[in-house]
Amino acid sequence: MNNRINSYFEKTVPIIEQNLEKYLTNKNDNGLSNVMKYSLLSGGKRLRPIFTLESYKLFSNGATIEKALPYACALEMIHTYSLIHDDLPCMDNDEFRRGMPTNHMVFGEAQALLAGDTLLTYAFEIIATNNLASFESRVRAVEILSKYAGFSGMAGGQMIDLDSSNNISSLDELFKMHSLKTSGLIKAALVLGYVASCDKLDNLIIKDLEKIADNIGISFQIRDDILDETSNLAILGKKTGSDSKNGKATALKFLTINEAEAVIDNLTNEAILLLEKYYTNDKNDCMLIELAKYLINREK
Amino acid sequence: MNNRINSYFEKTVPIIEQNLEKYLTNKNDNGLSNVMKYSLLSGGKRLRPIFTLESYKLFSNGATIEKALPYACALEMIHTYSLIHDDLPCMDNDEFRRGMPTNHMVFGEAQALLAGDTLLTYAFEIIATNNLASFESRVRAVEILSKYAGFSGMAGGQMIDLDSSNNISSLDELFKMHSLKTSGLIKAALVLGYVASCDKLDNLIIKDLEKIADNIGISFQIRDDILDETSNLAILGKKTGSDSKNGKATALKFLTINEAEAVIDNLTNEAILLLEKYYTNDKNDCMLIELAKYLINREK
Repeated sequence: MNNRINSYFEKTVPIIEQNLEKYLTNKNDNGLSNVMKYSLLSGGKRLRPIFTLESYKLFSNGATIEKALPYACALEMIHTYSLIHDDLPCMDNDEFRRGMPTNHMVFGEAQALLAGDTLLTYAFEIIATNNLASFESRVRAVEILSKYAGFSGMAGGQMIDLDSSNNISSLDELFKMHSLKTSGLIKAALVLGYVASCDKLDNLIIKDLEKIADNIGISFQIRDDILDETSNLAILGKKTGSDSKNGKATALKFLTINEAEAVIDNLTNEAILLLEKYYTNDKNDCMLIELAKYLINREK
Repeated sequence: MNNRINSYFEKTVPIIEQNLEKYLTNKNDNGLSNVMKYSLLSGGKRLRPIFTLESYKLFSNGATIEKALPYACALEMIHTYSLIHDDLPCMDNDEFRRGMPTNHMVFGEAQALLAGDTLLTYAFEIIATNNLASFESRVRAVEILSKYAGFSGMAGGQMIDLDSSNNISSLDELFKMHSLKTSGLIKAALVLGYVASCDKLDNLIIKDLEKIADNIGISFQIRDDILDETSNLAILGKKTGSDSKNGKATALKFLTINEAEAVIDNLTNEAILLLEKYYTNDKNDCMLIELAKYLINREK
């Protein structure tokens, strides 16, 4: 299975990266796009845009991905802005990410702040100018992305994370935070793919996609907690053990590693069952299911 | 004239503020909306949303403003995010704004950063969910706001401002920066009002509105430079003389105060001539012209 996923990544990631780069080429902007590029094109798994493209393929019966690519790229810009801002001294104060100095270590805090702001802003411009999609689709895409990047998602979860008076005292509270902070953009990813595929949306499908994304996001974060505790700089490309050292609640505050692995399995299996409702056609390659499974076993 | 403008502000500003507050009411968000509210509802002239509403009235023959209000509020959120981020220690490191402690002085840097990010994100959600406007209008509004808040406007200008190696050596260079950084959101304001009024847009009208906004923005900034040099904390509600002390280029590096006043007059008169092309109906109250004139004479 890993060979199949690896060859899928080898084929798909460069398409996403070429498109991301295209959006930041030939900007007459006094170097701002270079600051953005540094973080946007510094690797990463591109899981969120991949989820968008695969969701689009699922609901559009295997159409070519051009129509969904701008949405996928916009989402990755939002993800990248959040990484740049999270790394700033006033947030997590991280000096390395993916084995490289963080944005503000290279360009300075003010430039990093501005590059994050501009990535966030530009994401919406890219959606609005996606001429392959209908006006209705673009409006829905803006609505979904702003909802899940803002109050009802990533930013809302980040606020809980920041609130040091809010001592997370149960697994439920921790999962609520992950459901906002980490699952938020995965919800956006899957729903954006669906929104790119058609104008008349079925709310039950959106609810299923949100549940799938929620489970994947929480599993992903528990895996991060496990890796943060057990892996090392050479493998992860960032300092490890920093979350527990910073006093941040992780799943391992409430669970043993074995219990945490079991929770990941349960959540992922529930997501896979829901996905199987939609992969009804033999011709489909069930890539979202394979990606969900891949997330269980990743080592970095 | 000032009485008329004052009574106009007294009537219009509360409508904008009520709507801004409405958007941040009943959010179940662990206090994030309170951090946003602190800056969003801390006064200010509300010039940008007022420009949007007046532009809308001009092009919709005096229709009621409900359709344009969400665009106006979204724009003010973008303006407020930019103020919060500009005040941060890594940017201008300002402790006071409008006579009050800045956002990060009250809530902390991380919270201020996040509140700014969320205001920026929420602005696009508010546009996307403006059900009174067509899908096409909403897409155009997102496109305009992201363009003029991003590369081609405010953020692009901020990058020039940050670039300390870029010693601004002429009035032209300084005006180019103001044209991006300050005029950007005023361009957005006027064009958003037009976009709210109809779906089929005339590019010549957009060009005129951009020129009007450019002149108003540059004049506004020169006035700021003059006030920064000549006024004091009691009147402005912020420290004065800080720009020249920080070594930032101001118009007064290249012009005497009298010359600067003459430039403001010229730019404003050019903007008024363009506006008079559109205020052809006697029933119109020419409020954009009065506002442009008001900007010449303001004392804070």
